[in-house]
Amino acid sequence: MKSTIMDYNLSIHNVFWRAEKLYPDSQIVSRVHEGKVRYTYSKFSERVRRLSEYLREQGVDSSSVVGTIAWNTHRHLELYFSVPLLGGVLHTINVRFHPSEMEYVINFAGDKLVFYDVDVEEVKKVRAEKSKFVRLDDEFDREVNSHPPLDYFPEVDEREGAVMCFTSGTTGHPKGVVYSHRSIFIHSLSLLAKEIVGISSQDIVMPVVPMFHISAWDVPFASLMTGAKLVLPGPRPGPDHLASLIREEGVTVAIGAPTVWINLLDYLRREKIDLPSLKVVVTGGAEPPKGLIKGLRELGIRTYHAWGMTETEAITTVNQSENIEELSRQGKVMPGIEVKIVDPSGNEIPWDGKSWGELVIRGAWVTGEYFNSPEKTRDSFLTLEGKRWFRTGDVVVLDPKGSIKVVDRAKDLIKSGGEWISSVDLENAIMTYEPVLEAAVVGVPDLKWGERPVALVVLRQEYRGKVGKEDVLKYLESMNRFPKWWLPDEVIFVDSIPKTSTGKLDKKVLRTTIKGRMRA
Amino acid sequence: MKSTIMDYNLSIHNVFWRAEKLYPDSQIVSRVHEGKVRYTYSKFSERVRRLSEYLREQGVDSSSVVGTIAWNTHRHLELYFSVPLLGGVLHTINVRFHPSEMEYVINFAGDKLVFYDVDVEEVKKVRAEKSKFVRLDDEFDREVNSHPPLDYFPEVDEREGAVMCFTSGTTGHPKGVVYSHRSIFIHSLSLLAKEIVGISSQDIVMPVVPMFHISAWDVPFASLMTGAKLVLPGPRPGPDHLASLIREEGVTVAIGAPTVWINLLDYLRREKIDLPSLKVVVTGGAEPPKGLIKGLRELGIRTYHAWGMTETEAITTVNQSENIEELSRQGKVMPGIEVKIVDPSGNEIPWDGKSWGELVIRGAWVTGEYFNSPEKTRDSFLTLEGKRWFRTGDVVVLDPKGSIKVVDRAKDLIKSGGEWISSVDLENAIMTYEPVLEAAVVGVPDLKWGERPVALVVLRQEYRGKVGKEDVLKYLESMNRFPKWWLPDEVIFVDSIPKTSTGKLDKKVLRTTIKGRMRA
Repeated sequence: MKSTIMDYNLSIHNVFWRAEKLYPDSQIVSRVHEGKVRYTYSKFSERVRRLSEYLREQGVDSSSVVGTIAWNTHRHLELYFSVPLLGGVLHTINVRFHPSEMEYVINFAGDKLVFYDVDVEEVKKVRAEKSKFVRLDDEFDREVNSHPPLDYFPEVDEREGAVMCFTSGTTGHPKGVVYSHRSIFIHSLSLLAKEIVGISSQDIVMPVVPMFHISAWDVPFASLMTGAKLVLPGPRPGPDHLASLIREEGVTVAIGAPTVWINLLDYLRREKIDLPSLKVVVTGGAEPPKGLIKGLRELGIRTYHAWGMTETEAITTVNQSENIEELSRQGKVMPGIEVKIVDPSGNEIPWDGKSWGELVIRGAWVTGEYFNSPEKTRDSFLTLEGKRWFRTGDVVVLDPKGSIKVVDRAKDLIKSGGEWISSVDLENAIMTYEPVLEAAVVGVPDLKWGERPVALVVLRQEYRGKVGKEDVLKYLESMNRFPKWWLPDEVIFVDSIPKTSTGKLDKKVLRTTIKGRMRA
Repeated sequence: MKSTIMDYNLSIHNVFWRAEKLYPDSQIVSRVHEGKVRYTYSKFSERVRRLSEYLREQGVDSSSVVGTIAWNTHRHLELYFSVPLLGGVLHTINVRFHPSEMEYVINFAGDKLVFYDVDVEEVKKVRAEKSKFVRLDDEFDREVNSHPPLDYFPEVDEREGAVMCFTSGTTGHPKGVVYSHRSIFIHSLSLLAKEIVGISSQDIVMPVVPMFHISAWDVPFASLMTGAKLVLPGPRPGPDHLASLIREEGVTVAIGAPTVWINLLDYLRREKIDLPSLKVVVTGGAEPPKGLIKGLRELGIRTYHAWGMTETEAITTVNQSENIEELSRQGKVMPGIEVKIVDPSGNEIPWDGKSWGELVIRGAWVTGEYFNSPEKTRDSFLTLEGKRWFRTGDVVVLDPKGSIKVVDRAKDLIKSGGEWISSVDLENAIMTYEPVLEAAVVGVPDLKWGERPVALVVLRQEYRGKVGKEDVLKYLESMNRFPKWWLPDEVIFVDSIPKTSTGKLDKKVLRTTIKGRMRA
């Protein structure tokens, strides 16, 4: 029997209606090149309406894709709303992409317009004849403000695209996914749940996760949905910028990758600064090191551990455990998401807390395909019990109650003497060693064993030159956690560890670096 | 551009998957006629699977409607899941319906089976030849347990019906609405938001709102979605039962109409009992009297004020304000809901904190029609800007930020000398008078003025015979809140105030009572 409930589109239109009508006085603070901009949701809504009229004049409609190469700023936020409100798709482009990658995604997505931040020099090298490039600056502001506010937005079906994002492809071209109004709405609503992030109108929220990638975990949408004060940290935010913003604006919840908080914590210690307003740091993209969790805790800040990827729009698990061991797990999936683990042949593996397998996932904000890429799509999905599951490429263990523990990326596992070694496990162990700031472990080819683990280590300033390979290996041995053959053959000390354009350890570059260093 | 996100049904299947797989050890406690039953989600899931096999054997499938006339018990909860999991519609029937109403809705909905609680004597008088009646007792339990657990549930489209409910029609036949899997999922997810109810796995939740009406605000679904311990208070729960359950089970959040909490508070005071575990009472169906809010606060319990109706599935606003004046408002609508106010011609009225108008509403869990009743549907909806809005029949004022204040039901407003008097305002004012336990105000026909207000008052035991009409009127005057002509012409003292089958003041019966009393 059909229900009698009306068809109501779960869309960004409802989020905008709430921001404009229910929370006109809530604030948005944006760090930009010129300084700090502060305005109310009311003023923001007016700007969105003017920008929409400007975009409409430029020919943007429900068939358009509009690109952005921009930092977390109020101008970017306005585009986050205007484009989807008009029924178009906002294509966020990674600021750290190589010009050739920018060129590829702009042409592949068919961007009609591309808005770029003033410091994105790479744009000059991009050839995209069909796209008009617009610089986000004062002149742009004046142009927008000269337009009357658009007073009517078209109704958009909830399954239409709203935001498009490409993976930071380590092999081949980046792959695209298009999030829908519906998926953004449901995921944003989920972020308000107490056991997810629990964003409320009383919060002051700072997404350090970039708006140019996986829509900053939908945090901007979730914040405006519930009237929270939103603090956008702008271009290339360093630990000094973040600390100032948190203190000046009273940030209560901040969201970003572990490396952001590692650097911030280091800065706070050096400068002897505390952050009394900050209650929660939500981190994802990699397991938060225990030293980081403890360091934040000493400042009165709780760490939430989240997990997700480009193909799952944003996050699908959050672990809020107070227990530091338990917090190393990614945790249980959010409502609207389902998971299984499978072996390489696609057979289900039990949730026994021991068996490794690839995590497969389906749900209300999981992609069902790659944009215009049937071949890539074919390799990344499997069918179980008549349903489609996305293959995450993450090797995990599930405990009997479904709490996920990521062992490693399938392609980063190290196969030594026919047995698997988890690079993630070793990295996390090395990072619990007091002198270590950051660490990465990769497998290098070995004639006898197939592959052997090698560690790259960044020491804290005060320990540089004072700690050697043997100290690290002795520390690992003293943990009594790993079999002897897991211990790295080499420990290479470096000044920093290369990251991908989305802030993750770039293991491809790492392997090359190591090859060079070991030969030398 | 279509999004690439997969089609994933938001359904009770996902809630069940979570309960069974992610929270096997969470508890359900159920007060039944035989005593208290306690089991885990794991055991619950097994029972649901056995019950589903039993239902399947009885011919229940995706075309079936299955009725229940039952209290808040574990058996009812199992039916809440089994029937929708099979794709059928669970038709919850009001235990307090007159046999003729039961008969009407059972036949009108076409119930294949009707499960009823042992104490529902009215069932014997119901004639419904096409329905098979099954008593929820030990024998039923044995029958269910003799069936093997069903291991596969069909995929159900999210817009299919899951739960059906009829209004307690004060004029004419009850009107039916059918909630969808989707609406139940989204509304349940909303209940986890910090600023809605904020249910979490750490909570112990007791829905006193009946499962036989508007699916107990979806609280059973929301609780199982997040692994909360669920306490079901069973048949005809009195204040003594509620107090015992809260103390014994450590209830942290309880949900019910104001009258439930008025009686509980009265009982707690008389018996000198406190409820240390209880943090929050969520109340709806009527404005919570200030005395109630204060009384609960003295016990360390916060009051959340919610608003909704059968046609909006459950609740659409929650006000958590700490300010007692502000808390009398219904508050802002939840994400996924939109409201306007209109005059009798359907023109929009401004949100100025002064202008009265009828609240119209649309959203993800608002009905778009009445079940099989085109005529009733026609009168209850209007179209504004090309969109359908449900006419709530509530006269409200909206402040400039969209916070709703219900003035009265349109049909309960009193028109005196061409001006409107709010019966709700007067009731709430009288209920702030210390000697008053409950009060109701209705309009009675008056030759000179058209209508005049008359109050019915229940005094606290200790004040009976000691407080008279003049005391009440003097108190109202001393408030300096109402013009003289608003004051009731009569104050009639009664032992109790008649309620509808859903626990609201029954103003139809009240008017008849008053007519009798005033003639006498």
